[in-house]
Amino acid sequence: MILKAVFLGLEAGGKAVAAMNVQDAERLGVLSLARITILFNGVEQAAIVHSSTELMQPGCIGVCRKVWTGLGLKEGLDVEVEIATFPDSLYFIRNKLNGRKLAYDEILEIVEDTVKEKLSDVEISAFVTALHSFGLDLDEATNLSMAMFKTGSSMKLDREVVVDKHSIGGVPGDKTTLLVVPIIAACGLTIPKTSSGAITSPAGTADRAKVLMPVDLNMAEMQEVVVKTNGCIVWGGSVHLAPADDIFVKVEYPLSIDPLLLPSIMSKKKAVGANLLVVDIPCGRGAKVKTIGEADLLAKDFLEIGSRLGIKVRCAVTYGEQPIGYAVGPALEAKEALQALMGRGSPLDLIEKATDIAGMILELAGKSDGKRIAAEALRSGKAEQKMREIIAAQGGDPKITPEEIAIADHQFTFQSDRSGHMLWINNSLVADLARLTGCPKDSGAGMLIHKKIGDAVDKGEPLFTIFAQRSANLQRALDRLDGLKIMGVGDRMEMLIHEVRERPVIKRSFALDR
Amino acid sequence: MILKAVFLGLEAGGKAVAAMNVQDAERLGVLSLARITILFNGVEQAAIVHSSTELMQPGCIGVCRKVWTGLGLKEGLDVEVEIATFPDSLYFIRNKLNGRKLAYDEILEIVEDTVKEKLSDVEISAFVTALHSFGLDLDEATNLSMAMFKTGSSMKLDREVVVDKHSIGGVPGDKTTLLVVPIIAACGLTIPKTSSGAITSPAGTADRAKVLMPVDLNMAEMQEVVVKTNGCIVWGGSVHLAPADDIFVKVEYPLSIDPLLLPSIMSKKKAVGANLLVVDIPCGRGAKVKTIGEADLLAKDFLEIGSRLGIKVRCAVTYGEQPIGYAVGPALEAKEALQALMGRGSPLDLIEKATDIAGMILELAGKSDGKRIAAEALRSGKAEQKMREIIAAQGGDPKITPEEIAIADHQFTFQSDRSGHMLWINNSLVADLARLTGCPKDSGAGMLIHKKIGDAVDKGEPLFTIFAQRSANLQRALDRLDGLKIMGVGDRMEMLIHEVRERPVIKRSFALDR
Repeated sequence: MILKAVFLGLEAGGKAVAAMNVQDAERLGVLSLARITILFNGVEQAAIVHSSTELMQPGCIGVCRKVWTGLGLKEGLDVEVEIATFPDSLYFIRNKLNGRKLAYDEILEIVEDTVKEKLSDVEISAFVTALHSFGLDLDEATNLSMAMFKTGSSMKLDREVVVDKHSIGGVPGDKTTLLVVPIIAACGLTIPKTSSGAITSPAGTADRAKVLMPVDLNMAEMQEVVVKTNGCIVWGGSVHLAPADDIFVKVEYPLSIDPLLLPSIMSKKKAVGANLLVVDIPCGRGAKVKTIGEADLLAKDFLEIGSRLGIKVRCAVTYGEQPIGYAVGPALEAKEALQALMGRGSPLDLIEKATDIAGMILELAGKSDGKRIAAEALRSGKAEQKMREIIAAQGGDPKITPEEIAIADHQFTFQSDRSGHMLWINNSLVADLARLTGCPKDSGAGMLIHKKIGDAVDKGEPLFTIFAQRSANLQRALDRLDGLKIMGVGDRMEMLIHEVRERPVIKRSFALDR
Repeated sequence: MILKAVFLGLEAGGKAVAAMNVQDAERLGVLSLARITILFNGVEQAAIVHSSTELMQPGCIGVCRKVWTGLGLKEGLDVEVEIATFPDSLYFIRNKLNGRKLAYDEILEIVEDTVKEKLSDVEISAFVTALHSFGLDLDEATNLSMAMFKTGSSMKLDREVVVDKHSIGGVPGDKTTLLVVPIIAACGLTIPKTSSGAITSPAGTADRAKVLMPVDLNMAEMQEVVVKTNGCIVWGGSVHLAPADDIFVKVEYPLSIDPLLLPSIMSKKKAVGANLLVVDIPCGRGAKVKTIGEADLLAKDFLEIGSRLGIKVRCAVTYGEQPIGYAVGPALEAKEALQALMGRGSPLDLIEKATDIAGMILELAGKSDGKRIAAEALRSGKAEQKMREIIAAQGGDPKITPEEIAIADHQFTFQSDRSGHMLWINNSLVADLARLTGCPKDSGAGMLIHKKIGDAVDKGEPLFTIFAQRSANLQRALDRLDGLKIMGVGDRMEMLIHEVRERPVIKRSFALDR
């Protein structure tokens, strides 16, 4: 079929797409998402068809930049259009849609075609949904980890032991990594840590670290930092460890499912060359994992996949019923972490958690009495010194003091209207509120919690303070607080949680950090 | 967040989409497929975000035509961008992803938001995939039928009894509808038939009918034809009975799944006001439904959903091991059907099938001895006369003769290289071959089969003839035939079907007509 070429602006994320009128598509015998070959001047380009009654006039074919430049087209020139076959990977996806188990080379082909943009969003969505619906067994999860690792870039460190830690997240204020990395590096182990920025939370580890130093290093720069200091804290987005994951996560996010969580995490650990790994699974009603049973099931899968990938894994199921430490928000948290490294302030739960996890890593690496060694690295100032080395190596100011970290000006403190004890803190409301103050975009925004679960509270005592860089954001957070309780102070539990009068729209969503 | 507006060409099928740089999206706290609100000059527009590192520079937001004109934007102007919430329908889809049953108003909201383009392709794909993976029960199928009916246009005929027929297709050359509609209308019943064009087959009923008369009537024109003649054969694409289905089918096609088959068919029958329906389920190894057991299960669902929708349904499980009649291809089939209506030629299986199905419809409407009445309407010429009335009412030439129907010039006839009986005909190879000759685009192309299963064949006797309008297409079909057997002549079955030496890529796909 001969059609006139028309240039299309948007590129659907680098995919080779073409738009045809429904009439032409029917005459060619294709529906939307079929594959066509476009021929011009002896050159062929494959494309995914979108058919529409409005977008394209009959007799014309709209072509994205990729195909346009590939063929060297000009507006209005005639091109020959033919039906092409679907890629084999789509047939493998169809098998999974029918509940079949996928073999390694089938999985590799799906992941490769995903990265090469040969599969449409609809097809990738169906793949992810089918993995969620039918589940993936440990063979498939292992194979997916390997395929995602093979299609990404990886680090080659000449070290026998490389360790890593990972938290699936979900607890606001969890700056544990900012302590664990320097503790471990100070103890002589290599820990090339990559982290993500916040997506639905007030701050990710990359956001916190960015307050102290540049985090958008490329692979060569990251490797140099690690060789020099034994550690680093780098934003994962800039090192492209698992490009397939960046595509899969875009599908999982609106659907609030994450069948690829384990392969995603493990492929990236494999990519930095880790052979020892501790995974933190915070557990609590307000966290992502609600029960210890759930946490143990997840831990079991991490251990098993790790052993198949040659990574020795231990999991830490940790208390996640309230924020870690007192600070929530990039700058407030960076400040609290730096103070903790310097032996100032007393965020006991933060120090407890950091030394627990660092201790597990040290024991996994063969040292005995890991927690004591970790605590000593912290107490002696070696961890602080190591952190300043890492800051310098990543291009930050190694002399940075907690006082220099800018916190937002606009503040408001909430007082308790009764006496008693702090009974509960609602993690997701804390996160919502901190985001409304401007986190993670406004790094100085966020909140400080003054009382934690179990603390005695007098009437009129401050419960928490919110910080915003712009007064409009402070007001927005105050409006949101009106009528909502984010903490409970009292002497006894109130037994009625809430009343259901009409069919509720269940909006709970989750996204485990990866 | 303030960003500069940039105009995007492609519109992703009328959806309100916006493109942001990954950095800006992260700072705003959104991932791809999140919802944002774009504000300009006091006007708000909702949009689905696509984030990309290449497509959009930091500080800019690309906006599709829908949003661009809605806001009255100009290149480079500042717009305010805010996070918006996901539509409720997405939360309902998430419930289905977790295996929950959907209630009617949840389904209605999903279907409405699909038609209003509020859901992304990824989300619609997940919905369809989840329906496929978890299955949908009869309540959900009924509710989906109602929701698809409510979101489309419908016909209001002032008749107590309105009948319809539907075939799920899969057998080449099945021109049964071209006989059933005039037989039924001639017997005084009302049959407002809509049909689809071919997608993966050589000809759909709409393609066949188009050889005899215009078929792209709108709803008002179709209604007029039915009031005047009791019947019609109209292309479903021009009457918009179930716009949601047009969207769902685009997702189902590449995935080769069709969980929405029954709701799709039943919603359209409801939309034309049918209260009696006969569904033809061709059954055979080369058809879409392979076994009689499968056919019966499908039939059971049709009956049950019909009864819930107030449509009395009967199903005809029919023989589908070979083409119906002798002709395959729009013009060849229209010619054969017209000849059969005129009492010429002897496609016995076609006449048998048409009178079987017409008879079932008549009996469903309360007449006894339906098949005899149908055969009499055909024999007496009343059906032919009615067909000519319908042709005239739809704007065709009522005096059309079989000789006037143009058949392609380029022909090639295959002879049998042995004597024996016709043992089998491979339906899907027949369809492939007919498409290679140019069907359905070249209406005069296709093939004529000279021997059918059970016929005695002498060595050198013609088995089939292929027709093409362009010699290149004839050659393409001949090349394809080289080494392939589409029919088997012999005295005994060969027992070895084929040998599997390495892991095969299973490419079997199907799409039931709807």
